[in-house]
Order: sequence, then C-alpha cells, then structure tokens
Amino acid sequence: MITIQHERRPGVYYDSVVLMQLQRALVELDGVMDAGVVMATQANLDLLEDTGLPIKDVEARPEDLLIVIKAKSKSTADEALKQVDALLTRRRSAAASTYRPRSLDAAVDQLPQANWVLISIPGRYAASVSRHALEAGKHVFLYSDNVSLEDEIALKHYGREHGLLVMGPDCGTAIINGVGFGFANRVRRGAIGLVGASGTGLQAITTAIHHLGKGISHALGTGGRDLKREVGAICARQALDLLAHDPTTEVIVLVSKPPDPDVAASLLAAARQTGKPMVINFIGYAAPTRQIDNLYFAQTLQESAERAVALIGRAGNATTPTHQSSGPQERKYLRGLFSGGTLAIETTRGLVALLGNVHTNLSGTGASLLDDPLVSQGHTVLDLGEDVFTVGRLHPMIDNDLRMRRMKQEADDPQVALLLLDVVLGEGAHPDPASELAPLISEVREQHQVEVAVLLIGTDEDPQGLDRQHESLEAAGVAVFTDTMSLVSHAVACLGVEVSDEAPPVNLESLTSSVAAINIGLETFYDSLSEQGAEVVQVDWRPPAGGDERLMDILSKMNSSGKNE
Amino acid sequence: MITIQHERRPGVYYDSVVLMQLQRALVELDGVMDAGVVMATQANLDLLEDTGLPIKDVEARPEDLLIVIKAKSKSTADEALKQVDALLTRRRSAAASTYRPRSLDAAVDQLPQANWVLISIPGRYAASVSRHALEAGKHVFLYSDNVSLEDEIALKHYGREHGLLVMGPDCGTAIINGVGFGFANRVRRGAIGLVGASGTGLQAITTAIHHLGKGISHALGTGGRDLKREVGAICARQALDLLAHDPTTEVIVLVSKPPDPDVAASLLAAARQTGKPMVINFIGYAAPTRQIDNLYFAQTLQESAERAVALIGRAGNATTPTHQSSGPQERKYLRGLFSGGTLAIETTRGLVALLGNVHTNLSGTGASLLDDPLVSQGHTVLDLGEDVFTVGRLHPMIDNDLRMRRMKQEADDPQVALLLLDVVLGEGAHPDPASELAPLISEVREQHQVEVAVLLIGTDEDPQGLDRQHESLEAAGVAVFTDTMSLVSHAVACLGVEVSDEAPPVNLESLTSSVAAINIGLETFYDSLSEQGAEVVQVDWRPPAGGDERLMDILSKMNSSGKNE
Repeated sequence: MITIQHERRPGVYYDSVVLMQLQRALVELDGVMDAGVVMATQANLDLLEDTGLPIKDVEARPEDLLIVIKAKSKSTADEALKQVDALLTRRRSAAASTYRPRSLDAAVDQLPQANWVLISIPGRYAASVSRHALEAGKHVFLYSDNVSLEDEIALKHYGREHGLLVMGPDCGTAIINGVGFGFANRVRRGAIGLVGASGTGLQAITTAIHHLGKGISHALGTGGRDLKREVGAICARQALDLLAHDPTTEVIVLVSKPPDPDVAASLLAAARQTGKPMVINFIGYAAPTRQIDNLYFAQTLQESAERAVALIGRAGNATTPTHQSSGPQERKYLRGLFSGGTLAIETTRGLVALLGNVHTNLSGTGASLLDDPLVSQGHTVLDLGEDVFTVGRLHPMIDNDLRMRRMKQEADDPQVALLLLDVVLGEGAHPDPASELAPLISEVREQHQVEVAVLLIGTDEDPQGLDRQHESLEAAGVAVFTDTMSLVSHAVACLGVEVSDEAPPVNLESLTSSVAAINIGLETFYDSLSEQGAEVVQVDWRPPAGGDERLMDILSKMNSSGKNE
Repeated sequence: MITIQHERRPGVYYDSVVLMQLQRALVELDGVMDAGVVMATQANLDLLEDTGLPIKDVEARPEDLLIVIKAKSKSTADEALKQVDALLTRRRSAAASTYRPRSLDAAVDQLPQANWVLISIPGRYAASVSRHALEAGKHVFLYSDNVSLEDEIALKHYGREHGLLVMGPDCGTAIINGVGFGFANRVRRGAIGLVGASGTGLQAITTAIHHLGKGISHALGTGGRDLKREVGAICARQALDLLAHDPTTEVIVLVSKPPDPDVAASLLAAARQTGKPMVINFIGYAAPTRQIDNLYFAQTLQESAERAVALIGRAGNATTPTHQSSGPQERKYLRGLFSGGTLAIETTRGLVALLGNVHTNLSGTGASLLDDPLVSQGHTVLDLGEDVFTVGRLHPMIDNDLRMRRMKQEADDPQVALLLLDVVLGEGAHPDPASELAPLISEVREQHQVEVAVLLIGTDEDPQGLDRQHESLEAAGVAVFTDTMSLVSHAVACLGVEVSDEAPPVNLESLTSSVAAINIGLETFYDSLSEQGAEVVQVDWRPPAGGDERLMDILSKMNSSGKNE
C-alpha cells in the first residue's frame, strides 16, 4: 500500500545543495516513489502538499529539517529514512577530502590578496558574516536572500564610508574583470559596463550584447532593493562612479526593477554628469522620453543591449551637460505656464525625471500636486487650460490675459530663475501671440533677471506666421524650442543640478586587478570561480552553535564584535 | 486716488469672446489702469485678487457676471462702468449684421448636408445641445469643458448605438478631410491618421509630421476622458475603426493621456487586429516594449511623429497577427513558470498590455497579485525565485525540482493551454537543464494537449552548450525564443484574443465627404471654418430662459424631449 512517511530533525543546518542531493539520493532508492527534503517553513509544508507529498498535523518550525518519503510500502519508507544518515555522511566525506578553512579569518590568512567575499549562506546568518568581511576590507557579493532591509542599509552605509561595495543581498549576478560571480553567462569582454538591481536583467542583457558581437567590461549587481527609498541606491551609485572612471568602459547600462522616483531622479542626475552614454532600463518605469542628453531610456532587456551596442564609438557625440550654475543661487526655480495640457504633462515628466521635486496642477505626471494652483511652489509647471482657469473665460491659446498676469506674478518671486511657456499657433488660436508676449518677456528679463524659454508649436502654413512668431520671440531674448525634451534639457542645464557625494570612492583597482575571492556558502559557486581561473578559497562554514537559535543568541551576546561566526 | 470699483450683473450670459472684448475695450478707456470681466466663480474671484484686482466681500455666484475696474479715480471708474452697455451693444450690432439662425433646428434647415456640429457653449448647456445634434443624425465635436462624466457617458453610448461620433467633451482639436476643427494647425495632407485623447498632443504630432515632410489623412479628437474606465474609449474605438477602414490612412497614431489599464489593453487588442502599423503614445504609460507585432510604443509627441513617418510605406512589413483560436475553447489560459524575476516581470508586462487580466506573485507589473502563489488563477506568471519558494531550497536556476512539480500541476488544470518557461544558462546554473525539462515537456504535450514555449538565455560559450539545449528543447516540441517580446507575441497569437464590437460602424463617408458644419458657440471657430473653405452656419445661440437657472429648470421639465434650446 502506498504510504507517505516523514521525519523531522530539529534545528539542524545543511546547505541547500546537500538537501537537494539527499532528496535525489532518496528518490533513487528501490521502492521510493518520491521524496522531499526541505526546511519546515509553512510555505514548504504547503508546497509538499500541493506536489503530492502531504503530511498531516505538522507544525511549521523553519529551523527544522523535514524529510518526506512516498513509497510503495511502509517498510520501504522506513528503510529509506534509515538511510538518511549514511547518505549525508557519504556527502560529508567527499567534501572533506581537501583542507578547508572553517572561518573567514582563516580564509583571509590563506588568501590575503582576496578582494571579494561571496556569501550564499542562509539569510539569517548572512548579515553578520558580511559585516565581518567588510571589516576585513573586502568587497561583498551577497547572494543570500531573506536578509532584512535594516541589515542591508547598515551594511551598505558601512561599505559606502569605507569605499567598499556591498552587492546584494539577493544579488545573483556579477562579472568582474571577466570572472562571473553567482549566475553569469560567459560573454566576450568589451566596452559596455553594466550596473544592475536585477540579476537576470544583467544576464539577459550581457547575453544579448554577446549575441550582437560586442562585449562587457564589468557587470556589477546591486541587489533588487538597492534603488528603494530606504537604501537610496548606495551600491548603484558607487558602481556607476566606478564605471564612469573605468577607462575600458565606453557605454554604461543601468538596469533596475522599478525604482523609487526620487532615488531614480538623483541617480539620473549623477548618470547625466558622468558624460558617458548611458542606457537606462528602469523596468516598469514610464520613461519621459527615449533620449535626453547622454541618457537613453530602453524598455526591454533586448532593447537595452541593442542600444548599448549602437552607442559604442559614439561617446564623443554624447552631449556632456554643462553646469551653468555656480554654487547656491537666490534664483533657482523654474515656473512653467502652459496653454497645452499635454505639452505641460510631457515637460513636467521630463523635469521630474531629472530634477526630482516638481509641483503641478496636472495629474499623472509623477510631480506633486499643488495645494493651490494660484500659488506656485519650488519648481512649478501649470496647465492654464485646466477647468479652474477657464470657467467663463477663453482658453489661454486664444486669450493671453491670464497667462501674462501670472508671468508678472512669477517674475516678482525672487526665487524664480526661469519661465517656460508654450506658444501654440494654428486655426482657432490667438492671431498673433508674440505681439502680446514678447514685450512682456523683454520687460521681465530686464527688470527681474528672469530668463524665458518657449516651446513653439506651429507650421509654416499657420495663419500666425511661424517665422515671424519665432523671430519676434527671439528678439525679446527668448530661447525657442520646438519639442519638449529640448526645452527640458535647456531648463536643467540653466538651473544646474547639484550632485554631491562626500563618500570616498571605491578603488578602481577592485575592477582592474585579477579576481581573488573567498566563497562562503554554495560550493557550486566555488567550482565555477575555480573553473574560470580565479584564485578562490572555500570556507567550510557552519552556523554558530550548530544552528541552535537560543545558543546562537547567547554566543552573540558574549561576543558583541560580531566575529563569532 | 487709485480705486477699484466693480459691478455685478446677476444671471446674465455672454460668450467668452464677448467678455474678453469688453475687458479690452474697458482697459483702453482713458484713466482706466486695469479691468477684469469674468463670471463670478470662486476661482475667478481668487484670480482677480492675485492679479491686482481685489474686491472685498463678494459672494461667489458662478452665474453672475462681474466687471471690475481699476482706475486713477473713483469718477473715472464709475464712468467706465457706465460704458459697459454701450460697449456690449456695439459688439452686438456687429454680430447682427448677417442673418443667423437662433436654434440648431433652424441651422439644420439652412444647411441640411451638415455632417458635423461644433459645440463650444458653456459646459452646463452643452450636453443638452449635443444630444439634440445627435438626434438630428450629426456627429458632434464637443469643445466645451465642465461637462459631467455622466453626460459624457450617456452621449457616447447614444453615439455608439447610432454610428455617430461624440468627440469630446473638452475636445480641442480635429482635422477632418483637411479641415481643422477648434485648435488645429495647417498641415500637409498625407498617409498618417491620428486618434487623440489629447488636443495639444494632436497639434504637436501633426505639426512635427508636417515638419518632417509628411502629412495627415485625418486627426480625430476624443476628449481627454475617453480612455477612462467609465467611458471605455467608446470614441477612440470608433475612430480607430474608421481609420483602419480608411484607404488613405496607412499608419495610425494613437495618443492619449494616461489610460485605464484595462481600457488600454482592450484598445491595444483592437489596434493589434487592424493590422495597420500603429504608433501608441499613452502619455505616462510604462509601455512594456518599443514594438510588438504592428504596435509601436512611443514616449514623446516628437517621437510619435518620427516613428509614424518612418513607418509610411512599410505597412506590408507589419506582422498582421494571426488568430489561431476558433471560438470559445476549454483550454484558454497560460501559466508562466520562471526562474528569472526580471524575465518574469518583463513577460508579464507584455502580457498585461495585450491580454489585460494576468495574475502574478510579482509586484510592479500591472498584473493582479495572486492570493496564494501556490494556486494559479486565469493567466498566471510566477517567479519561482521569490523568497517564499527558496527558503532552505536551491534557486530554480540550479534545481528544477520545484518547477517540474508545478509544471505537472498546471498541466493537470483542464483550463491551461500554454506553459511558458525560461531556461537560463551560464556559470552557477544547472549543468544541463534541458536533460531534465525536455522529457517532462514531451509528456505534458502528449498527455494534456498543453503547448510549451521557452525563453532561452545563454551564449555559445556557456558551459551547458547553447545549441545542445536549444535542439533538445525543440526536439521535445517546444517553441524556443531568445527575447521576452517574441515569447509574448507567440503566446498572444496562440491564445487568440477576442475583440468583438456589436455596434454599427461609423460611416466612412463622414471622413471622406467634404465638411459641412454647424457651429454653436465661439465665433472664432466659425471664422476659422469659413476661411478653410468649409460650408458652415453659425447659430446665434442663447441659453434657454436667458441663463436663468430656475426658469431653465421649469422649461426643461415642460419639454422633456430635450429640444428646448
């Protein structure tokens, strides 16, 4: 009679490779139909049940090991369970055939030139080991997941202050100086550097670049949470700086799961200032445009690869943004007064991407909604065609009165440096908008040191005369543009964006010297590094106190330096 | 002494052009420094105050006209207020010089061939007049804003049932057969047709197409709310169908303010089936890709124009999607079982765009979150690398066990037609995934009539052997792809998407016959239509009961057919 038997081993630690191998060995035994070897989390209990290995009345205790056997008879199942220790011992003796240090300190003694520590032990032990590695002056590649956000923040702040990278937690992929860490494809070396808060993102893009005949300088993973507000892209920022200074990297690709909008804006500001062509793939991010200055927004992993490849050799063409601002200024804000709603939205979205904090009366732009559309705050973009402004009044495309009154009001604000306007020509619109706007613009520029830029939409056939409008506005000292992103680029350059980072840079040698690494956790990563020709030491790591949570706690209190692993 | 005086005229209706002209005439009087002529809404009272014309202790009554004078003395101000009637009369007699019908019915008698009615009277009167126009069998261009959503829905449903377009409310722009309605630029005629829930969006794109040397067949506005859930894109759908059948339209551009996701998905499904190359610019929408099948996603108005122009003459190259589905099927859902999180996200985003309703355990995809990741619902895409699946277990890139168990589970579901998998090669990954997956895939295909498609990520240098993996999967009957959007395109084609619309189509003659129109509201639109050579009649419209709200209400009850204007 088919039966399902199980055994629970409380508080025993084995790494996941051992568990997988045990499960496979059990399935291969005569009479065994299926087997499951898992830690006894609730999720794993549910999974066992859903995949045909239900066990009843078992309490979830995540620190316990659970071994489940489905067999043709109870005696076969019991016999299989009796084999467990023998199967585990077989595995152990194979691993013990070479000398392996049992601690990080011993590994450092054995390979002092190690510049990287790879950590893939269970999440609850990973933060403490990572801290230890950082204190030893090593960069950390932290593959482990289930590490708390608090631990991630603390580790990354420590790393930032000491010029060390903390790639992860949950960092699946990196390629450093030609050597793949974790999951990494074997790709040609070349001119494209990558920063990724997405492991398979890095894999898919590097693979596609290889297929397109080009190669990779370095690929730096950051862990999937790096661009969240709480972490603030510490690792991505360090990685970006490294690649910006790396002479072999011509083009940079930045890929991330959906970032926090403010973090995205400050990262884009930093990216913009590297001057290197940069392909941005913020997955699920509604990019404001396809290109602005040296930033190229891509929507898929495949497109990221294609655009990066197309940009090789074109670095000289990238518009390196100029900084017209010199230190803190009185007049630092822009005010956009638009008659066209969509033009206002598109402009606002561009400004939000590069400046971060913008206010508006428009929804759906990512900018903050103004409390009162009659009072501007900081950078503000207004659609004056919104209902509140047009009740019993002509649309601002026909009647400039309201907009001109608001222009005066904004220019009177001593914090305003720049006014943005749209001028839309065509049927139905004001017969000669420049005749009304230009004199006021001249006045505003002379009396208030406020600059004015205009987005001019119209054709040579429009009744207002496109050339005449253009000339009249330029004569008043206006910078005239015909698409929103040129206007945005101009505005950001006029205002300047301060990007400061006081932290010590990561030494470029981390990338350029040959890879020497200490691996703590999955042995498959050790094997992979060895095969790639890297110097690597495997630590025969065991959890403190054999994984006994209470004893660990006591040990941890006895040794507060955190060096107890 | 400078003084500000005002006069309130209760319940008097003038159109906005008259108010603007009155204000200008007042400002030109000797001794008058500034003047404001507005309906007494709270917003307008605030605006008067903010622009230097504050008046105290005035209650907001939106139906009242407010005239404010700032003058060098009280006597000058009073004198100016006394001129108001004379200035208004001057205006009236100019307008009265030609015969004008006072009602829509009289206008229809005068120009029975009129196919369009343009309506730009105040919002509170606009729905009733629009209804009347539809009942007379005319298409409506509804420029008025401040029309309720309920009225918009009712009008559009009526229009849809009768094959009539309701463009608006708040529709600023259209170009029908070369004639601009409302605000429209004068552009070359050509092969690009546009549908826009964004007036300045249409203006900016048509203008840019003109600058690029190409032209417009027709541009159809829908009003900014058309793609909201409540309205369901009724007008956009009619407009899309019209352009799909219009022989002069080779390429279609669809521009809209951020749409409701489900409305977007059903509109994209309809767009996909037209087979014509279609540029989509859903402003602020995080498009899943740059191109899939005949759909091209653009991020800015300028890019929309550039891509549309580039697509002219390439209609033959567009992949017209094939429908492999034939009527309702038992097996209709797909299940994606991914090891790479970003690959799962990208695939899900593509599927959401084209299928609408997809479930997932991933955040940030636009899909619905599964209640329980262990139980799939409808179309489901899972990242099996998520924490819940990996505690005490190897990552699915190394260990196929969990994924294979789930594959069997999904194949057992009689509603499942298609399984999607990723197979990621490279360092650290399983040494030969196809050797485990291919036999199971063969079994699943044979026993359950479930098809399988695989996204294969790897290079020719990867240790697993890319070609060998590829061949082994194909031999098991798998469709193999190397980028997510090819996988998505295949999946959507396999499943088929039902796009049905029972409503009668809008007669194509609406676009191809020469424009004859009735204009109710802004005279500038009448002037513009006349100048463009269209046949047009201006209605000398007055609100019922002279704008008296109570009397209007009584009249409306007396004449419930709504023909009382």
